[in-house]
Amino acid sequence: MYSSRGTTFALAAGTTRTATIPGISAAGADADLRVHTPSADAELLAFGRTVSAPVVPVSPTGCPTPAVVTRAAFEALGGGATGGEIAGVAGDPLRTLVLDCGLARPTAAPTVDLGATPGADVREPVAVPDAGSTVERAREVGRALHGDRLIVGETVPGGTTTAMGVLAALGERPAVSSSFPENPLERKREVVDAGLAASDLAPGGCSGDPLRAIRLLGDPTLAGVTGLVAGALDAGLGVTLAGGTQLATAGLLLRHAGVDDPLALATTSFVADDDSADVVSLAADADLDLTVTDPGFADDHPAMAAYRRGEAKEGVGMGGALALADEADALAAARERLVAVYDRVVGDGSTDDGSASDGEDGRDGQDDGDGAEVEAR
Amino acid sequence: MYSSRGTTFALAAGTTRTATIPGISAAGADADLRVHTPSADAELLAFGRTVSAPVVPVSPTGCPTPAVVTRAAFEALGGGATGGEIAGVAGDPLRTLVLDCGLARPTAAPTVDLGATPGADVREPVAVPDAGSTVERAREVGRALHGDRLIVGETVPGGTTTAMGVLAALGERPAVSSSFPENPLERKREVVDAGLAASDLAPGGCSGDPLRAIRLLGDPTLAGVTGLVAGALDAGLGVTLAGGTQLATAGLLLRHAGVDDPLALATTSFVADDDSADVVSLAADADLDLTVTDPGFADDHPAMAAYRRGEAKEGVGMGGALALADEADALAAARERLVAVYDRVVGDGSTDDGSASDGEDGRDGQDDGDGAEVEAR
Repeated sequence: MYSSRGTTFALAAGTTRTATIPGISAAGADADLRVHTPSADAELLAFGRTVSAPVVPVSPTGCPTPAVVTRAAFEALGGGATGGEIAGVAGDPLRTLVLDCGLARPTAAPTVDLGATPGADVREPVAVPDAGSTVERAREVGRALHGDRLIVGETVPGGTTTAMGVLAALGERPAVSSSFPENPLERKREVVDAGLAASDLAPGGCSGDPLRAIRLLGDPTLAGVTGLVAGALDAGLGVTLAGGTQLATAGLLLRHAGVDDPLALATTSFVADDDSADVVSLAADADLDLTVTDPGFADDHPAMAAYRRGEAKEGVGMGGALALADEADALAAARERLVAVYDRVVGDGSTDDGSASDGEDGRDGQDDGDGAEVEAR
Repeated sequence: MYSSRGTTFALAAGTTRTATIPGISAAGADADLRVHTPSADAELLAFGRTVSAPVVPVSPTGCPTPAVVTRAAFEALGGGATGGEIAGVAGDPLRTLVLDCGLARPTAAPTVDLGATPGADVREPVAVPDAGSTVERAREVGRALHGDRLIVGETVPGGTTTAMGVLAALGERPAVSSSFPENPLERKREVVDAGLAASDLAPGGCSGDPLRAIRLLGDPTLAGVTGLVAGALDAGLGVTLAGGTQLATAGLLLRHAGVDDPLALATTSFVADDDSADVVSLAADADLDLTVTDPGFADDHPAMAAYRRGEAKEGVGMGGALALADEADALAAARERLVAVYDRVVGDGSTDDGSASDGEDGRDGQDDGDGAEVEAR
């Protein structure tokens, strides 16, 4: 009668001024648009299209946001959608939950207000002034979750740089990935070194003090994720961190907090194949049970081709959503839905307006979308 | 594969200074607590318990908020819950969506931010300064909804008084109900008359101009509901207004806006049996297809007994949730879950912490809750 089953798929969505540093983030076509990316990603997850956000996020070269892939995976899992909702794996409820970890622009998606403000530039002395309250509020929400499992991802432009900052502060290997095909590691290291200096911190200076690491060198999504996970563990849920090196960093933060529960990390083959990063070692360092899912993007469709070129790689819980699809033997269906979702949100939408699309395959309009036509709807 | 089925159960949650007028609202134990009621109701709907709200809303005499009944109906329909989620009627996805129509206190529930501020006192010249933008933003969200059906309810203390104000402004019969067993109609009429005078308006002065009626005499949930419904109709969904005379008022607002789509109204037998109001005539005036559901509260359980005494009557979409339960032949199950939810949120929670309760009937602790022990959790 009263089911305690089901999965909550949570998204920690936030912004920082770190993302305005030139050359470190491809999560948006340019710096002015990048600040909208997390708000738009939340709408794509909740509604399957943008609503109040002015654009569908794309990289400077037109690679669509991983939110498109995550949403496609959920649609393949059998759900329609709306605010909050979603799908269901073989009758197992799947719900989404967006945490507002310092959004800087409006979103029409339903969000949990954690009272978080956008993060500062990590080169300032304090990067996340309200890290403590954000962790505590997120933990309250985590404790209120029902079901078997929490899967949690992030959307925060510049997030691999703040993750690198946190890894440095914790004294862990700073082996982060990038949304660019070529990881601007030197640029990130300079930024992190400046951040350590501004915070008067030596590498490893926050070992065993994860809250301080987030506060001085991190971003508000790391506060939201670690708080939510801690609360979900309190409530007895199993937890999968859905993402690459940023979520591995969240795992390390939890280990530095003394959390010794089993934790899983689900990421994409694009992150695992990133030689400039080392998600495998980070996962091992944090004792995370790693799942790598290859979505099988063999198609020349513009969305798939961009990922095959090494763009974006991960984000918006993409690795976790693909792992769910893989569990349900629905990766092929997810690829089909990706074409449909891409057409709906990037193309002219003529074949799939997202409101009544049972049985259509969404391929009719796939030539319309080339990543350069992204407009507000 | 991609299901367009399913129901969105939306809740327009807001506050007004009208609710601070003594003697017009029982949606909270006292005026200081009443301002938390919509925030707490949203948490009860989303999580099945309060999270950041300081109290479970009760009337001055201890009748628990209708959110407890609505939540119980959803649990009976087979869902667990969390932020956003929920149940499912025979495999038909059921999702919740809370619209922030001017909440005055934090809520841990996921909410759509419409940019609405709390309403003023209707005795001021303008009651809802941002009515226009709230309607427009809600309409955008309504257009983004998927599925077959929208069911929409409200939680706004003092809402029958603002509904009466709008009915007067529209020139419709001011036949509103009350959360008190004895409807303080004279008090409400005085307030509405003062509001008309302050707005320099004669009865019927806003006939054909529903937005002006909300702006001058209404509350922000009426803006949220009418905008959301208009958008959902644009998107091709069927719409059920879930509530009593306030939702009938929303129906009349839509008719004054020229909307001629079929609309349903689902309310409780407690409202239909309220001789001081006339929901049947209001529904007829607005051409609403009326469903009245009697939840069969024959038990002496404190929650059920209070409703039988005529307290609360409706709210938080209770009539719509009960209609869904009735459609699924689950009213008996809803009553059982009501006992469990009441024990969880009002009692000591010893038998049902809301996190893993398959198969328990929640009755063990029912003597603990008497409505006077309501505390923050």
